[in-house]
Amino acid sequence: MSITVVGSVAYDSIETPSGRRDRCLGGAAAHFSLAASFFTDVRVIAVVGEDFGTEQEAVFRARNIDISGIERAAGKSFFWEGSYLDDLNEAKTRNTELNVFASFSPKIPDSYRDSQFLFLANIDPVLQRRVREQMPDVKLVAGDTMNYWIKDHRPALLEVLKGLDILLINDTEAKMLAGNNNLVMAARAVMAMGPRFLVVKHGEYGATLFHSNMRQGQGAELRVPAMPLESVVDPTGAGDSFAGGFFGYLASAPELTPEAFRRAMFYGSVMGSFAVERFGTERMQALTREEIDERFKIFRELTHLAS
Amino acid sequence: MSITVVGSVAYDSIETPSGRRDRCLGGAAAHFSLAASFFTDVRVIAVVGEDFGTEQEAVFRARNIDISGIERAAGKSFFWEGSYLDDLNEAKTRNTELNVFASFSPKIPDSYRDSQFLFLANIDPVLQRRVREQMPDVKLVAGDTMNYWIKDHRPALLEVLKGLDILLINDTEAKMLAGNNNLVMAARAVMAMGPRFLVVKHGEYGATLFHSNMRQGQGAELRVPAMPLESVVDPTGAGDSFAGGFFGYLASAPELTPEAFRRAMFYGSVMGSFAVERFGTERMQALTREEIDERFKIFRELTHLAS
Repeated sequence: MSITVVGSVAYDSIETPSGRRDRCLGGAAAHFSLAASFFTDVRVIAVVGEDFGTEQEAVFRARNIDISGIERAAGKSFFWEGSYLDDLNEAKTRNTELNVFASFSPKIPDSYRDSQFLFLANIDPVLQRRVREQMPDVKLVAGDTMNYWIKDHRPALLEVLKGLDILLINDTEAKMLAGNNNLVMAARAVMAMGPRFLVVKHGEYGATLFHSNMRQGQGAELRVPAMPLESVVDPTGAGDSFAGGFFGYLASAPELTPEAFRRAMFYGSVMGSFAVERFGTERMQALTREEIDERFKIFRELTHLAS
Repeated sequence: MSITVVGSVAYDSIETPSGRRDRCLGGAAAHFSLAASFFTDVRVIAVVGEDFGTEQEAVFRARNIDISGIERAAGKSFFWEGSYLDDLNEAKTRNTELNVFASFSPKIPDSYRDSQFLFLANIDPVLQRRVREQMPDVKLVAGDTMNYWIKDHRPALLEVLKGLDILLINDTEAKMLAGNNNLVMAARAVMAMGPRFLVVKHGEYGATLFHSNMRQGQGAELRVPAMPLESVVDPTGAGDSFAGGFFGYLASAPELTPEAFRRAMFYGSVMGSFAVERFGTERMQALTREEIDERFKIFRELTHLAS
């Protein structure tokens, strides 16, 4: 079933120990939709400026991603500049220009309205909520957010959380949102705010799936490590690619069983592991479904006992 | 088969957000041997001072641990004082007193000499080497170390590494030892120094097993997360308890197959998860084999796909 995603489509300038790229395609909705497109049909809602070119559009088209919901506005596209020179696990933001996103009011094309899966990528919770309200009948809604919205836009974020089935955030964000430094207790507190499922991403250490109906003594539903990689070129978009693999797999699953959620975690980790191998969206652009299946197999061997 | 372990047996004064304990039983060899004792016979080589009491000895005896190799010397026992008030993942040392360990010269009782498994817990590499040389015919030797020895006693440590089959250290130590910030590349470099196997412990995120004969594209042999825990009372000894579960299971395995090493990683993580639930050795003292088996089962469900 198809996914509609709302979020940023942007230009990123990135510096890492492996080198730098200027104004490459980026943004949460771009990374998410590319990863999810290996599993199901994806439709994007975003806004770009007059500087957004046919070259960038071609990246989406090559993966059959529907971009009829990407609005073109007067002005410049969202721009982010950051570096990972000291620590590959933490981006240092040098510059953020909201540009056309500052006055964005998301509109959902009629052709998107039969999407059964909705992903609210990390943007202003006011915009997330507006999209959610326009698609009240979807089967499953997942979303992401970040420390900025948790800290300074909490009331708006809490409204969004009420309408989510699944929230995907990282350790720091989960603990900040809950005001609790123990991950399991923080997870319970976050799920009490709305989402039935919580995926906490641990960066290079994988991710944990929590469910509001947790069994006593289990702590979580599933914990999946990340692939150990010999070369990490650029971590930008790893979390969004995890989300794309996770939610893309769920949308492609015949039924939303607990086992489907578990497999989705492994696909999320696999897609995150590809994303960091090259700059920006470069690895996703070159990726094949065969490579995904091969790495899923290796990842399973890396984490599972034989008997 | 029985394990001989050399390392510190000490008094620890510990403060965590859950409270504090003064002069409780501690030391790497104490934590290691208690955890390993659930799987096999364990014999300890260490030195304690005149302050070491029958109450502390009784903790070992209750787990059938052979302490005839714990020498009693004039003076005070090794003492460590530390806190985890800001961050449960990082101990802040307030005070370390080597005391009787400053002039320790390990002697191996004749009754220990048929041990086929040797564990060199974290102590001065000069002492580790002296024990290793006195037991040249053991089947499997594993060891631990820490940043202090890596930084300031590198030549002595490199001699120890040549005699190890397995090294167990944490992320920071592995990267420091190799001089490489990528874990997979650091692992290759460390294994080139001697050990065929490397276990890198990731604290609350689990551990990774590397083998010098790594397959292309796999990165590692096995990656196991840690149990998500609702309550972490005291992380002291978690790494040593991991090592005790890991090496204890190996010593109890009918054959040292790759699958035995993989299961050992899971038992290591299980034992580490128990260790942190109470102060010092308190949880290990109250633990039963049934609880270990039950948690192993839960841990497997937490990490494995059904099909």
